[in-house]
Amino acid sequence: MKPLIFITNDDGHSARGLAALVAVARELGDVVVVTTELNASGKSHSLTTGVPIRVRTISKEPGLEQYACTGTPVDCVKLGEEHLCPRRPDLVLSGINHGSNASINVIYSGTMGAVIEASALGYPAIGFSLLNHSENADFGACLPFVRSICRNVLDNGLPPRISLNVNIPKLPYEDIKGIKVCRESQAYWSDSFERRVDPSGRPYYWLTGKFVCLDNATDTDEWALHNGYISVVPTHPDYTAPDFIEPMRKRFENGL
Amino acid sequence: MKPLIFITNDDGHSARGLAALVAVARELGDVVVVTTELNASGKSHSLTTGVPIRVRTISKEPGLEQYACTGTPVDCVKLGEEHLCPRRPDLVLSGINHGSNASINVIYSGTMGAVIEASALGYPAIGFSLLNHSENADFGACLPFVRSICRNVLDNGLPPRISLNVNIPKLPYEDIKGIKVCRESQAYWSDSFERRVDPSGRPYYWLTGKFVCLDNATDTDEWALHNGYISVVPTHPDYTAPDFIEPMRKRFENGL
Repeated sequence: MKPLIFITNDDGHSARGLAALVAVARELGDVVVVTTELNASGKSHSLTTGVPIRVRTISKEPGLEQYACTGTPVDCVKLGEEHLCPRRPDLVLSGINHGSNASINVIYSGTMGAVIEASALGYPAIGFSLLNHSENADFGACLPFVRSICRNVLDNGLPPRISLNVNIPKLPYEDIKGIKVCRESQAYWSDSFERRVDPSGRPYYWLTGKFVCLDNATDTDEWALHNGYISVVPTHPDYTAPDFIEPMRKRFENGL
Repeated sequence: MKPLIFITNDDGHSARGLAALVAVARELGDVVVVTTELNASGKSHSLTTGVPIRVRTISKEPGLEQYACTGTPVDCVKLGEEHLCPRRPDLVLSGINHGSNASINVIYSGTMGAVIEASALGYPAIGFSLLNHSENADFGACLPFVRSICRNVLDNGLPPRISLNVNIPKLPYEDIKGIKVCRESQAYWSDSFERRVDPSGRPYYWLTGKFVCLDNATDTDEWALHNGYISVVPTHPDYTAPDFIEPMRKRFENGL
């Protein structure tokens, strides 16, 4: 039986990046796609609570079933693997996102929310992002790399609870120097909200922001991407900062 | 000048856990509260994109300003520190959540999304959660511990980008054995969606789930909480799995 590849994203079911990823996955196995009805960028690891979720069948053909649901990317993974897949997926993919999910962006990303959820549920999972926000982004140059990384993970798996956050620079194929496995750069977004005043004189606030990188090291995803490499960060569903457990013990375990 | 303490949560502005945290914070400094208009449980690290955010002033009195906004808990932090605080906060608090944010729950939690965002923005930040989902939960027993942890962080700060995920067992004060600094338990939620059929015969899906703990170790938050301790997990805004960088280099850096 062919491998089953489950795909989601956070740009919705009509995104070009999704179509590119589905095309690669169909060369490798049977494909089930469950995406959000609407763009779900910035939905992070959020869940739909308080209202139920509806599922719509977009298409069914041999080797490819495609659904849209009213939930978040994490809901797509949970509901898809439980109710829509004919058998247990061998690989979960998300993307190809239109825009970077490197560095701090991973914690806001619906694309990577889905991937990290899949890894917690026990699936080998990969998120792909191209550093090009345009709706009409050209995914051609990155597809050989996407194919190769997917094959590698289908053949060899990933360690339990480990997923990959793959970001691809916006470069022609021949200018991509290769792959670097990295850690996330330390960074944040400042100047987050722009205040405006509506015609009635009432203020409102638009999300905006300026990316501030705190990290000059050469073992980071931002370094790799700025230097023409594809960045691969091994990620896990765990926010623990292990180096700070011991110092915090001294401060907090001595009672009140 | 008194310390400025910024507070948010994900249960909304009328939650009892918020009122309890505000009461503690007022003993320690001036307080600015920015919460979501509605319950935002499960909103994780999500941002509001595509629509602007409105802010409503709930109350202003000496030492306490309280606002509600139409965004997520992470939006509350970003917008609050940038546009609503009279000066730079000395401490950011979130909670007290009605229900656990231990183990894998931290990645879904709006309470902890706000805390981890604050840490990325450079603030010492603490999330508090009581293991009691009830709207009418009694926060009395945990307040001496909450006060003590807040004082400790106000006096000594936290390392850059480090925040604390504090979970408190549902026990009388005298039965709480103390504080354990821990790592997150490895766990996941299975059986996530329940399928039902509406009166028109169309299916819909409710989020539900069963907590599955993979971890029997005694250095985890689940162990601490089951054994009568308050758990304190040092958290950071980084999903990198550092132990897997080197093994993945061997697999992915050798070119296509």
